[in-house]
Amino acid sequence: MTQYFFILADSELELVPQEIVNERCILNNARARGKAPEKILLDASHHHPAFGKLPDSERRGRPDLVHYFLMLCIDSDLTAEGKLRVFVHTRNNDVIAVNPETRLPPHYPRFVGLIESLYEQRVVPSKENPLLELRQGVTLETLVNALKPDEVLVMNPVGEETPLLEKFGSIKSERVAVIIGGFSRGDFKSDLSKLKPTNISLGKRMLKVWTVTSKALCAIEQASKMPEVTLPKPSKPRRAPKKKAE
Amino acid sequence: MTQYFFILADSELELVPQEIVNERCILNNARARGKAPEKILLDASHHHPAFGKLPDSERRGRPDLVHYFLMLCIDSDLTAEGKLRVFVHTRNNDVIAVNPETRLPPHYPRFVGLIESLYEQRVVPSKENPLLELRQGVTLETLVNALKPDEVLVMNPVGEETPLLEKFGSIKSERVAVIIGGFSRGDFKSDLSKLKPTNISLGKRMLKVWTVTSKALCAIEQASKMPEVTLPKPSKPRRAPKKKAE
Repeated sequence: MTQYFFILADSELELVPQEIVNERCILNNARARGKAPEKILLDASHHHPAFGKLPDSERRGRPDLVHYFLMLCIDSDLTAEGKLRVFVHTRNNDVIAVNPETRLPPHYPRFVGLIESLYEQRVVPSKENPLLELRQGVTLETLVNALKPDEVLVMNPVGEETPLLEKFGSIKSERVAVIIGGFSRGDFKSDLSKLKPTNISLGKRMLKVWTVTSKALCAIEQASKMPEVTLPKPSKPRRAPKKKAE
Repeated sequence: MTQYFFILADSELELVPQEIVNERCILNNARARGKAPEKILLDASHHHPAFGKLPDSERRGRPDLVHYFLMLCIDSDLTAEGKLRVFVHTRNNDVIAVNPETRLPPHYPRFVGLIESLYEQRVVPSKENPLLELRQGVTLETLVNALKPDEVLVMNPVGEETPLLEKFGSIKSERVAVIIGGFSRGDFKSDLSKLKPTNISLGKRMLKVWTVTSKALCAIEQASKMPEVTLPKPSKPRRAPKKKAE
Protein backbone atom coordinates (compact mmCIF):
# COMPACT_ATOMS: atom_id res chain seq x y z
CA MET A 1 0.00 0.00 0.00
CA THR A 2 1.27 3.45 -0.88
CA GLN A 3 0.94 6.12 1.80
CA TYR A 4 0.39 9.54 0.27
CA PHE A 5 1.22 12.91 1.81
CA PHE A 6 -0.48 15.87 0.18
CA ILE A 7 1.19 19.17 0.96
CA LEU A 8 -0.21 22.53 -0.02
CA ALA A 9 3.03 24.48 -0.30
CA ASP A 10 3.75 28.20 0.03
CA SER A 11 0.04 28.73 0.55
CA GLU A 12 -1.13 32.30 0.97
CA LEU A 13 -2.43 31.94 4.49
CA GLU A 14 -1.23 34.36 7.18
CA LEU A 15 -2.44 36.67 9.92
CA VAL A 16 -2.66 40.35 8.97
CA PRO A 17 0.99 41.48 8.79
CA GLN A 18 2.17 44.13 11.24
CA GLU A 19 2.85 46.72 8.53
CA ILE A 20 -0.84 47.06 7.59
CA VAL A 21 -2.50 46.31 10.91
CA ASN A 22 -3.66 49.91 11.30
CA GLU A 23 -5.16 50.31 7.84
CA ARG A 24 -8.78 51.38 7.83
CA CYS A 25 -10.19 48.35 5.98
CA ILE A 26 -8.41 46.00 8.39
CA LEU A 27 -9.62 47.86 11.47
CA ASN A 28 -13.20 47.96 10.15
CA ASN A 29 -13.22 44.30 9.29
CA ALA A 30 -11.71 43.33 12.65
CA ARG A 31 -14.23 45.47 14.53
CA ALA A 32 -17.16 43.99 12.58
CA ARG A 33 -15.93 40.53 13.51
CA GLY A 34 -15.22 41.42 17.15
CA LYS A 35 -11.55 40.45 16.91
CA ALA A 36 -8.21 42.19 17.34
CA PRO A 37 -6.83 43.24 13.93
CA GLU A 38 -3.58 41.31 14.37
CA LYS A 39 -5.54 38.13 15.10
CA ILE A 40 -7.51 37.94 11.86
CA LEU A 41 -6.44 36.20 8.66
CA LEU A 42 -5.33 38.36 5.78
CA ASP A 43 -8.01 38.08 3.09
CA ALA A 44 -7.60 39.63 -0.35
CA SER A 45 -11.35 39.85 -0.71
CA HIS A 46 -11.82 42.08 2.37
CA HIS A 47 -8.47 43.81 2.76
CA HIS A 48 -7.53 44.65 -0.79
CA PRO A 49 -7.41 48.43 -0.22
CA ALA A 50 -4.48 47.88 2.18
CA PHE A 51 -2.57 45.56 -0.15
CA GLY A 52 -0.69 48.35 -1.93
CA LYS A 53 1.70 48.47 1.00
CA LEU A 54 2.53 44.76 0.86
CA PRO A 55 5.16 43.10 -1.30
CA ASP A 56 3.77 40.21 -3.43
CA SER A 57 0.37 41.87 -3.04
CA GLU A 58 -1.05 40.22 -6.18
CA ARG A 59 -1.00 36.78 -4.59
CA ARG A 60 -1.40 37.21 -0.84
CA GLY A 61 -4.42 36.67 1.42
CA ARG A 62 -6.01 33.53 -0.05
CA PRO A 63 -7.22 31.32 2.82
CA ASP A 64 -10.01 30.20 0.47
CA LEU A 65 -7.48 28.14 -1.53
CA VAL A 66 -6.49 26.28 1.64
CA HIS A 67 -10.15 25.65 2.38
CA TYR A 68 -10.86 24.10 -1.05
CA PHE A 69 -7.75 21.95 -0.80
CA LEU A 70 -8.66 20.62 2.63
CA MET A 71 -12.33 19.99 1.84
CA LEU A 72 -11.42 17.90 -1.21
CA CYS A 73 -8.67 15.95 0.56
CA ILE A 74 -10.61 15.23 3.73
CA ASP A 75 -13.66 13.78 1.97
CA SER A 76 -11.60 11.72 -0.48
CA ASP A 77 -11.62 7.93 -0.73
CA LEU A 78 -7.90 8.05 0.03
CA THR A 79 -8.53 9.63 3.43
CA ALA A 80 -11.40 7.21 4.11
CA GLU A 81 -9.05 4.31 3.36
CA GLY A 82 -6.31 5.71 5.60
CA LYS A 83 -3.91 6.27 2.70
CA LEU A 84 -3.63 10.05 2.87
CA ARG A 85 -2.14 12.53 5.33
CA VAL A 86 -2.58 16.23 4.64
CA PHE A 87 -0.41 19.24 5.49
CA VAL A 88 -0.65 22.95 4.78
CA HIS A 89 2.62 24.85 4.49
CA THR A 90 2.44 28.64 4.24
CA ARG A 91 4.50 31.52 2.86
CA ASN A 92 5.79 32.19 6.39
CA ASN A 93 6.82 28.56 6.98
CA ASP A 94 3.89 27.80 9.23
CA VAL A 95 2.76 24.20 8.92
CA ILE A 96 -0.71 22.93 9.76
CA ALA A 97 -0.97 19.18 10.31
CA VAL A 98 -4.44 17.81 9.73
CA ASN A 99 -5.70 14.78 11.59
CA PRO A 100 -7.49 12.51 9.07
CA GLU A 101 -10.45 12.33 11.47
CA THR A 102 -11.01 16.09 11.12
CA ARG A 103 -14.30 17.34 9.76
CA LEU A 104 -13.89 20.98 8.75
CA PRO A 105 -16.70 23.50 8.36
CA PRO A 106 -17.72 23.70 4.68
CA HIS A 107 -18.82 27.29 5.36
CA TYR A 108 -15.86 29.54 4.53
CA PRO A 109 -16.28 32.21 7.25
CA ARG A 110 -16.39 29.47 9.89
CA PHE A 111 -13.25 27.92 8.45
CA VAL A 112 -11.52 31.31 8.71
CA GLY A 113 -12.62 31.58 12.36
CA LEU A 114 -11.26 28.10 13.05
CA ILE A 115 -7.85 28.89 11.56
CA GLU A 116 -7.74 32.11 13.57
CA SER A 117 -8.36 30.06 16.72
CA LEU A 118 -5.58 27.73 15.63
CA TYR A 119 -3.16 30.66 15.42
CA GLU A 120 -4.15 31.68 18.95
CA GLN A 121 -4.14 28.24 20.56
CA ARG A 122 -1.65 26.33 18.35
CA VAL A 123 -4.00 23.34 18.44
CA VAL A 124 -7.76 22.99 17.91
CA PRO A 125 -10.16 22.00 19.28
CA SER A 126 -7.96 20.99 22.25
CA LYS A 127 -4.64 19.37 23.21
CA GLU A 128 -6.54 16.22 24.20
CA ASN A 129 -8.17 16.08 20.77
CA PRO A 130 -5.71 17.65 18.33
CA LEU A 131 -7.44 17.81 14.96
CA LEU A 132 -5.42 20.70 13.60
CA GLU A 133 -1.93 21.50 14.89
CA LEU A 134 0.21 24.50 14.03
CA ARG A 135 3.99 24.44 13.96
CA GLN A 136 5.87 27.60 13.07
CA GLY A 137 9.26 28.03 11.42
CA VAL A 138 9.09 24.77 9.48
CA THR A 139 10.36 25.06 5.93
CA LEU A 140 8.88 22.96 3.15
CA GLU A 141 12.16 21.05 2.99
CA THR A 142 12.07 20.25 6.71
CA LEU A 143 8.45 19.13 6.48
CA VAL A 144 9.04 16.88 3.48
CA ASN A 145 12.19 15.36 4.95
CA ALA A 146 10.35 14.62 8.19
CA LEU A 147 7.83 12.57 6.22
CA LYS A 148 10.61 10.44 4.72
CA PRO A 149 9.05 9.99 1.31
CA ASP A 150 10.54 7.60 -1.25
CA GLU A 151 9.31 9.88 -4.00
CA VAL A 152 8.39 13.58 -4.22
CA LEU A 153 6.02 14.77 -6.92
CA VAL A 154 5.39 18.46 -7.52
CA MET A 155 2.39 19.62 -9.51
CA ASN A 156 4.21 22.30 -11.41
CA PRO A 157 3.37 23.92 -14.74
CA VAL A 158 7.12 24.03 -15.56
CA GLY A 159 7.33 20.24 -15.31
CA GLU A 160 6.90 17.67 -18.01
CA GLU A 161 3.35 17.13 -19.16
CA THR A 162 2.53 13.71 -17.78
CA PRO A 163 -0.72 11.74 -17.94
CA LEU A 164 -1.62 11.49 -14.26
CA LEU A 165 -3.28 8.11 -14.46
CA GLU A 166 -0.14 6.56 -15.94
CA LYS A 167 2.10 8.34 -13.48
CA PHE A 168 0.18 7.24 -10.41
CA GLY A 169 -0.49 3.81 -11.90
CA SER A 170 3.24 3.17 -12.12
CA ILE A 171 4.10 4.16 -8.56
CA LYS A 172 5.65 1.39 -6.52
CA SER A 173 7.01 3.52 -3.67
CA GLU A 174 5.64 3.14 -0.19
CA ARG A 175 5.65 6.80 0.77
CA VAL A 176 4.87 9.49 -1.79
CA ALA A 177 4.71 13.23 -1.16
CA VAL A 178 2.54 15.22 -3.58
CA ILE A 179 3.19 18.96 -3.48
CA ILE A 180 0.59 21.42 -4.77
CA GLY A 181 1.12 25.18 -4.85
CA GLY A 182 -1.26 27.05 -2.52
CA PHE A 183 -1.27 30.29 -4.50
CA SER A 184 -3.12 31.69 -7.49
CA ARG A 185 -0.23 33.43 -9.25
CA GLY A 186 3.49 33.22 -9.63
CA ASP A 187 5.76 30.39 -8.67
CA PHE A 188 6.78 28.42 -5.60
CA LYS A 189 8.74 30.57 -3.15
CA SER A 190 10.32 27.58 -1.41
CA ASP A 191 13.42 26.03 -2.92
CA LEU A 192 12.20 22.73 -4.32
CA SER A 193 15.47 21.60 -5.84
CA LYS A 194 16.83 19.95 -2.69
CA LEU A 195 13.77 17.70 -2.59
CA LYS A 196 14.83 16.16 -5.93
CA PRO A 197 11.24 16.13 -7.07
CA THR A 198 9.58 14.91 -10.22
CA ASN A 199 7.75 17.91 -11.67
CA ILE A 200 4.41 17.07 -13.22
CA SER A 201 2.62 19.50 -15.46
CA LEU A 202 -1.09 19.14 -16.16
CA GLY A 203 -0.90 21.14 -19.38
CA LYS A 204 -0.57 24.69 -20.52
CA ARG A 205 -3.76 26.04 -18.95
CA MET A 206 -3.28 27.62 -15.51
CA LEU A 207 -5.42 25.52 -13.19
CA LYS A 208 -7.00 26.51 -9.91
CA VAL A 209 -5.85 24.85 -6.69
CA TRP A 210 -9.13 22.92 -6.41
CA THR A 211 -8.78 21.56 -9.94
CA VAL A 212 -5.20 20.38 -9.39
CA THR A 213 -6.13 18.80 -6.05
CA SER A 214 -9.16 17.08 -7.50
CA LYS A 215 -7.21 15.74 -10.51
CA ALA A 216 -4.44 14.34 -8.32
CA LEU A 217 -6.87 12.67 -5.90
CA CYS A 218 -8.99 11.19 -8.69
CA ALA A 219 -6.00 9.89 -10.62
CA ILE A 220 -4.63 8.08 -7.56
CA GLU A 221 -8.05 6.59 -6.84
CA GLN A 222 -8.58 5.52 -10.45
CA ALA A 223 -5.08 4.12 -10.77
CA SER A 224 -5.64 1.92 -7.73
CA LYS A 225 -8.70 0.41 -9.41
CA MET A 226 -7.01 -0.34 -12.71
CA PRO A 227 -5.88 -3.89 -13.38
CA GLU A 228 -2.15 -4.05 -12.90
CA VAL A 229 -0.38 -4.27 -16.22
CA THR A 230 2.62 -6.51 -15.86
CA LEU A 231 4.98 -5.89 -18.71
CA PRO A 232 7.34 -8.72 -19.65
CA LYS A 233 10.76 -8.07 -18.25
CA PRO A 234 13.38 -7.93 -20.99
CA SER A 235 15.87 -9.72 -18.73
CA LYS A 236 17.30 -12.42 -20.99
CA PRO A 237 16.91 -12.61 -24.73
CA ARG A 238 14.27 -15.24 -25.37
CA ARG A 239 14.34 -17.83 -28.06
CA ALA A 240 12.24 -16.75 -30.95
CA PRO A 241 8.85 -18.42 -30.81
CA LYS A 242 8.47 -21.07 -33.49
CA LYS A 243 5.14 -19.77 -34.58
CA LYS A 244 3.14 -16.68 -33.70
CA ALA A 245 0.24 -17.40 -31.42
CA GLU A 246 -2.88 -16.30 -33.21
CA MET B 1 -17.84 14.68 -29.37
CA THR B 2 -20.11 14.22 -26.39
CA GLN B 3 -21.72 17.35 -24.98
CA TYR B 4 -22.23 17.09 -21.24
CA PHE B 5 -24.82 18.91 -19.13
CA PHE B 6 -24.10 18.91 -15.42
CA ILE B 7 -27.15 19.71 -13.31
CA LEU B 8 -27.06 20.25 -9.57
CA ALA B 9 -30.59 19.12 -8.73
CA ASP B 10 -32.86 20.02 -5.80
CA SER B 11 -30.06 22.15 -4.45
CA GLU B 12 -30.65 23.85 -1.13
CA LEU B 13 -30.41 27.41 -2.42
CA GLU B 14 -33.26 29.85 -1.69
CA LEU B 15 -33.98 33.31 -0.36
CA VAL B 16 -35.06 33.47 3.29
CA PRO B 17 -38.62 32.07 3.26
CA GLN B 18 -41.47 34.35 4.30
CA GLU B 19 -42.34 32.33 7.43
CA ILE B 20 -39.03 33.13 9.16
CA VAL B 21 -38.28 36.55 7.70
CA ASN B 22 -38.88 38.27 11.06
CA GLU B 23 -36.77 35.95 13.18
CA ARG B 24 -34.11 37.72 15.19
CA CYS B 25 -31.08 35.94 13.66
CA ILE B 26 -32.32 36.74 10.15
CA LEU B 27 -32.96 40.41 10.98
CA ASN B 28 -29.54 40.76 12.61
CA ASN B 29 -27.73 39.12 9.74
CA ALA B 30 -29.61 41.19 7.14
CA ARG B 31 -28.88 44.42 9.05
CA ALA B 32 -25.18 43.57 9.36
CA ARG B 33 -25.06 43.02 5.61
CA GLY B 34 -27.12 46.13 4.79
CA LYS B 35 -29.79 44.14 2.94
CA ALA B 36 -33.52 43.55 3.32
CA PRO B 37 -34.13 40.25 5.15
CA GLU B 38 -36.26 38.83 2.31
CA LYS B 39 -33.45 39.49 -0.16
CA ILE B 40 -30.73 37.44 1.51
CA LEU B 41 -29.97 33.77 0.91
CA LEU B 42 -30.99 31.30 3.57
CA ASP B 43 -27.79 29.99 5.15
CA ALA B 44 -27.78 27.20 7.70
CA SER B 45 -24.54 28.49 9.11
CA HIS B 46 -25.96 31.92 10.03
CA HIS B 47 -29.67 31.29 10.41
CA HIS B 48 -29.81 28.01 12.24
CA PRO B 49 -31.67 29.38 15.29
CA ALA B 50 -34.66 30.12 13.01
CA PHE B 51 -34.65 26.71 11.32
CA GLY B 52 -36.91 25.04 13.88
CA LYS B 53 -39.89 26.65 12.15
CA LEU B 54 -39.00 25.27 8.72
CA PRO B 55 -39.91 21.87 7.33
CA ASP B 56 -36.89 19.90 6.04
CA SER B 57 -34.78 22.06 8.33
CA GLU B 58 -31.96 19.51 8.53
CA ARG B 59 -31.02 20.02 4.90
CA ARG B 60 -31.94 23.58 3.94
CA GLY B 61 -29.80 26.69 3.47
CA ARG B 62 -26.67 25.30 1.78
CA PRO B 63 -25.56 27.79 -0.92
CA ASP B 64 -22.01 26.62 -0.17
CA LEU B 65 -22.74 23.32 -1.94
CA VAL B 66 -23.74 25.22 -5.08
CA HIS B 67 -20.54 27.24 -4.84
CA TYR B 68 -18.29 24.16 -4.67
CA PHE B 69 -20.14 22.56 -7.57
CA LEU B 70 -19.79 25.62 -9.79
CA MET B 71 -16.15 26.32 -8.95
CA LEU B 72 -15.17 22.76 -9.88
CA CYS B 73 -17.24 22.68 -13.07
CA ILE B 74 -16.18 26.09 -14.36
CA ASP B 75 -12.44 25.48 -14.04
CA SER B 76 -12.64 21.96 -15.51
CA ASP B 77 -10.95 20.83 -18.72
CA LEU B 78 -14.44 19.96 -20.02
CA THR B 79 -15.55 23.59 -19.75
CA ALA B 80 -12.27 24.80 -21.28
CA GLU B 81 -12.87 22.45 -24.23
CA GLY B 82 -16.48 23.61 -24.67
CA LYS B 83 -17.90 20.20 -23.76
CA LEU B 84 -19.77 21.18 -20.60
CA ARG B 85 -22.81 23.30 -19.81
CA VAL B 86 -23.78 23.77 -16.19
CA PHE B 87 -27.14 24.35 -14.50
CA VAL B 88 -28.27 24.73 -10.92
CA HIS B 89 -31.80 23.58 -10.10
CA THR B 90 -33.16 24.37 -6.63
CA ARG B 91 -35.71 22.98 -4.19
CA ASN B 92 -38.16 25.71 -5.33
CA ASN B 93 -37.69 24.91 -9.04
CA ASP B 94 -35.53 27.92 -9.73
CA VAL B 95 -32.96 27.25 -12.42
CA ILE B 96 -29.69 29.12 -12.84
CA ALA B 97 -28.06 28.79 -16.25
CA VAL B 98 -24.33 29.40 -16.20
CA ASN B 99 -22.52 30.82 -19.20
CA PRO B 100 -19.30 28.82 -19.69
CA GLU B 101 -17.38 32.12 -19.90
CA THR B 102 -18.38 32.94 -16.33
CA ARG B 103 -15.67 33.41 -13.72
CA LEU B 104 -17.25 33.24 -10.28
CA PRO B 105 -15.77 34.70 -7.09
CA PRO B 106 -13.91 31.94 -5.21
CA HIS B 107 -14.65 33.87 -2.01
CA TYR B 108 -17.89 32.46 -0.58
CA PRO B 109 -19.44 35.67 0.86
CA ARG B 110 -18.97 37.35 -2.55
CA PHE B 111 -20.62 34.40 -4.27
CA VAL B 112 -23.59 34.74 -1.92
CA GLY B 113 -23.84 38.45 -2.76
CA LEU B 114 -23.75 37.66 -6.46
CA ILE B 115 -26.58 35.11 -6.22
CA GLU B 116 -28.62 37.62 -4.18
CA SER B 117 -28.14 40.14 -7.01
CA LEU B 118 -29.23 37.46 -9.45
CA TYR B 119 -32.49 36.98 -7.52
CA GLU B 120 -33.11 40.74 -7.69
CA GLN B 121 -32.15 41.31 -11.33
CA ARG B 122 -32.82 37.86 -12.88
CA VAL B 123 -29.59 38.19 -14.85
CA VAL B 124 -26.04 39.21 -13.84
CA PRO B 125 -23.96 41.18 -14.52
CA SER B 126 -26.31 42.62 -17.19
CA LYS B 127 -28.76 41.66 -19.95
CA GLU B 128 -26.11 42.53 -22.53
CA ASN B 129 -23.63 40.20 -20.85
CA PRO B 130 -25.71 37.43 -19.28
CA LEU B 131 -23.28 35.25 -17.34
CA LEU B 132 -25.84 33.90 -14.88
CA GLU B 133 -29.54 33.77 -15.70
CA LEU B 134 -32.39 32.86 -13.37
CA ARG B 135 -35.59 31.20 -14.52
CA GLN B 136 -38.27 30.40 -11.97
CA GLY B 137 -40.89 27.66 -11.97
CA VAL B 138 -38.79 25.23 -14.00
CA THR B 139 -38.96 21.67 -12.75
CA LEU B 140 -36.00 19.33 -13.08
CA GLU B 141 -37.97 17.36 -15.65
CA THR B 142 -38.66 20.47 -17.78
CA LEU B 143 -35.01 21.50 -17.59
CA VAL B 144 -33.69 18.07 -18.57
CA ASN B 145 -36.21 17.68 -21.40
CA ALA B 146 -35.26 21.10 -22.78
CA LEU B 147 -31.65 19.93 -23.07
CA LYS B 148 -32.74 16.94 -25.18
CA PRO B 149 -30.19 14.50 -23.78
CA ASP B 150 -29.73 11.04 -25.33
CA GLU B 151 -28.81 9.71 -21.93
CA VAL B 152 -29.50 10.80 -18.35
CA LEU B 153 -27.18 9.72 -15.55
CA VAL B 154 -28.00 10.35 -11.91
CA MET B 155 -25.31 10.14 -9.27
CA ASN B 156 -27.44 8.35 -6.72
CA PRO B 157 -26.43 6.19 -3.78
CA VAL B 158 -29.45 3.95 -4.47
CA GLY B 159 -28.11 3.14 -7.95
CA GLU B 160 -25.89 0.33 -9.02
CA GLU B 161 -22.26 0.66 -7.99
CA THR B 162 -20.53 1.38 -11.29
CA PRO B 163 -16.87 2.12 -11.99
CA LEU B 164 -17.07 5.66 -13.35
CA LEU B 165 -14.18 5.36 -15.74
CA GLU B 166 -15.80 2.37 -17.44
CA LYS B 167 -19.18 4.03 -17.51
CA PHE B 168 -17.99 7.25 -19.08
CA GLY B 169 -15.54 5.38 -21.32
CA SER B 170 -18.42 3.48 -22.88
CA ILE B 171 -20.61 6.49 -23.63
CA LYS B 172 -21.38 6.93 -27.31
CA SER B 173 -24.28 9.41 -26.94
CA GLU B 174 -23.94 12.92 -28.22
CA ARG B 175 -25.78 14.64 -25.37
CA VAL B 176 -25.47 13.40 -21.81
CA ALA B 177 -27.09 14.92 -18.73
CA VAL B 178 -25.34 14.19 -15.43
CA ILE B 179 -27.49 14.93 -12.38
CA ILE B 180 -25.90 15.47 -8.96
CA GLY B 181 -27.92 16.10 -5.80
CA GLY B 182 -27.34 19.57 -4.35
CA PHE B 183 -28.08 18.64 -0.76
CA SER B 184 -26.21 17.13 2.17
CA ARG B 185 -28.90 14.80 3.53
CA GLY B 186 -31.92 12.88 2.39
CA ASP B 187 -32.96 12.08 -1.13
CA PHE B 188 -33.90 13.88 -4.34
CA LYS B 189 -37.21 15.72 -3.98
CA SER B 190 -37.84 15.87 -7.73
CA ASP B 191 -39.41 12.87 -9.43
CA LEU B 192 -36.56 11.35 -11.40
CA SER B 193 -38.48 8.38 -12.78
CA LYS B 194 -39.85 10.17 -15.84
CA LEU B 195 -36.32 10.98 -16.95
CA LYS B 196 -35.62 7.24 -17.31
CA PRO B 197 -32.18 7.73 -15.85
CA THR B 198 -29.31 5.36 -15.21
CA ASN B 199 -28.58 5.59 -11.50
CA ILE B 200 -24.90 5.43 -10.66
CA SER B 201 -23.71 4.79 -7.13
CA LEU B 202 -20.18 5.64 -6.09
CA GLY B 203 -20.26 3.23 -3.17
CA LYS B 204 -21.66 2.97 0.30
CA ARG B 205 -19.91 5.99 1.81
CA MET B 206 -22.01 9.18 1.73
CA LEU B 207 -19.96 11.60 -0.37
CA LYS B 208 -19.98 15.39 -0.30
CA VAL B 209 -21.24 17.32 -3.32
CA TRP B 210 -17.69 18.45 -4.17
CA THR B 211 -16.39 14.90 -4.10
CA VAL B 212 -19.13 13.59 -6.39
CA THR B 213 -18.66 16.52 -8.79
CA SER B 214 -14.92 16.09 -8.84
CA LYS B 215 -15.15 12.33 -9.43
CA ALA B 216 -17.58 12.75 -12.31
CA LEU B 217 -15.51 15.47 -14.00
CA CYS B 218 -12.24 13.56 -13.60
CA ALA B 219 -13.71 10.29 -14.87
CA ILE B 220 -15.03 11.96 -18.03
CA GLU B 221 -11.69 13.66 -18.61
CA GLN B 222 -9.72 10.46 -17.99
CA ALA B 223 -12.05 8.36 -20.12
CA SER B 224 -11.54 10.70 -23.06
CA LYS B 225 -7.77 10.15 -22.83
CA MET B 226 -7.94 6.36 -22.65
CA PRO B 227 -7.22 4.38 -25.78
CA GLU B 228 -10.50 3.00 -27.03
CA VAL B 229 -10.76 -0.63 -26.07
CA THR B 230 -12.47 -2.63 -28.76
CA LEU B 231 -13.53 -5.90 -27.30
CA PRO B 232 -13.94 -8.85 -29.67
CA LYS B 233 -17.61 -9.42 -30.37
CA PRO B 234 -18.74 -12.86 -29.31
CA SER B 235 -20.84 -13.20 -32.47
CA LYS B 236 -20.30 -16.86 -33.39
CA PRO B 237 -19.38 -19.64 -30.99
CA ARG B 238 -15.74 -20.40 -31.56
CA ARG B 239 -14.21 -23.78 -31.87
CA ALA B 240 -12.70 -24.89 -28.63
CA PRO B 241 -8.96 -24.40 -28.69
CA LYS B 242 -7.10 -27.69 -28.93
CA LYS B 243 -4.74 -26.81 -26.18
CA LYS B 244 -4.67 -24.19 -23.52
CA ALA B 245 -2.24 -21.40 -24.23
CA GLU B 246 0.17 -21.24 -21.34
